Amino acid sequence: MDGLPPLSATDRTRHRRLREQGRKERAELRAVLSAGFVCHLGVFVNRPGDGAGAPMVVPTVYAFDEENLYLHGSVASRSLLTAAEEAVTACVTITIVDGLVLARSVFEHGVNYRSAMIYGPIRAITEPAVKLAALRRLSEHLAPGQWDYVRRPSRKELAATTVLSMPLTEASVKIRRGPPDDGDSPDAALGLWAGELPLTATWQRPVPDPAISDAVPAPPHIARRAGTRAFPESAP
Amino acid sequence: MDGLPPLSATDRTRHRRLREQGRKERAELRAVLSAGFVCHLGVFVNRPGDGAGAPMVVPTVYAFDEENLYLHGSVASRSLLTAAEEAVTACVTITIVDGLVLARSVFEHGVNYRSAMIYGPIRAITEPAVKLAALRRLSEHLAPGQWDYVRRPSRKELAATTVLSMPLTEASVKIRRGPPDDGDSPDAALGLWAGELPLTATWQRPVPDPAISDAVPAPPHIARRAGTRAFPESAP
Repeated sequence: MDGLPPLSATDRTRHRRLREQGRKERAELRAVLSAGFVCHLGVFVNRPGDGAGAPMVVPTVYAFDEENLYLHGSVASRSLLTAAEEAVTACVTITIVDGLVLARSVFEHGVNYRSAMIYGPIRAITEPAVKLAALRRLSEHLAPGQWDYVRRPSRKELAATTVLSMPLTEASVKIRRGPPDDGDSPDAALGLWAGELPLTATWQRPVPDPAISDAVPAPPHIARRAGTRAFPESAP
Repeated sequence: MDGLPPLSATDRTRHRRLREQGRKERAELRAVLSAGFVCHLGVFVNRPGDGAGAPMVVPTVYAFDEENLYLHGSVASRSLLTAAEEAVTACVTITIVDGLVLARSVFEHGVNYRSAMIYGPIRAITEPAVKLAALRRLSEHLAPGQWDYVRRPSRKELAATTVLSMPLTEASVKIRRGPPDDGDSPDAALGLWAGELPLTATWQRPVPDPAISDAVPAPPHIARRAGTRAFPESAP
């Protein structure tokens, strides 16, 4: 399954400082960050059970601006990162799976995907105004329009929320698109079907909370997302 | 955004040895593993650039049997794990995003998801027959039917492929379903719409490789996946 390694980091994609990256690479990074909203955060932790050190990979939601990635702090990463005064080295990976690559041989099978890896120090935001701004960015990245529609965080809620920040200075992007690579190999003579099986994520019709009255319609900014693609190729 | 922490590990889900877990938890783990096919592998590495240690999180595909998780080795994890004679401690996380949880307050917003975290030693499989069996399992988990349809790995291809193995002994599962949690809170009096915005991934019509003849139809095991859901709630 040669096509599968593209799903992972290779020498070609060794993380590079953004200032060393070309404009195209930076645009690709932004495109991947725009398309996704869930990342996997990897940190090294001393586990509570046995105290042994181990990597921990937790999914969480993110947003970003020109300079930073913002992550909603999980309980696990919160206990880790608010305890630490200094920043912790982390790796954040965002992966969007676009389909399967079906080749003439098992070896050439693979996955079409878009992926970004960001390395760097991660820390909890402590300044309330900065935290609120990052939280707004998270909210608007996931559900544009909700920030202005729902009740915003109270001071107490803000204090109870952890938002992590990581500079967007070192990153790599890896993208695989298109048909399998063995169309001009000797295996083409096998006469087998080969191609792509695309995978598409679509927002469905909003499902009202059973606790609300039928008379309350979903607001337009939510209702109009039904039927639209999540993780689109270009930024919305 | 209180609903977001469920996307991550909490005290409740601290990894537990499978033998300590209830039957329900083990069934949930298997259900998550069955539904997904891409995981994020976290290992601690000494980076090639500066030699500094850092966690690395790479996406890859996986399959599993009763005892083990099998991962297709990326170039990065391959260089790491084939170099190491002993196993390396890893964390593998699988996350399926099922939708957004839209509450009456920013704080209660969140994500509906299914997630599994597996901790343990990971190593490259060296024995060819074991590797071939694991590769078949990977192939059949991603694209059932392809193993019997396409050319299988040659000895040389098998040697060039890295498959990693990790025991399924220590894991946690975390699932969030359903409406927001603030339906009976004071915020309910705000009279705002609240609910879920489900996200569904669907396999599309297969796209033939431009290199194949139009006369070759997609085989039934591929063609019939078009329109079906990926990551279904129950195993197919």
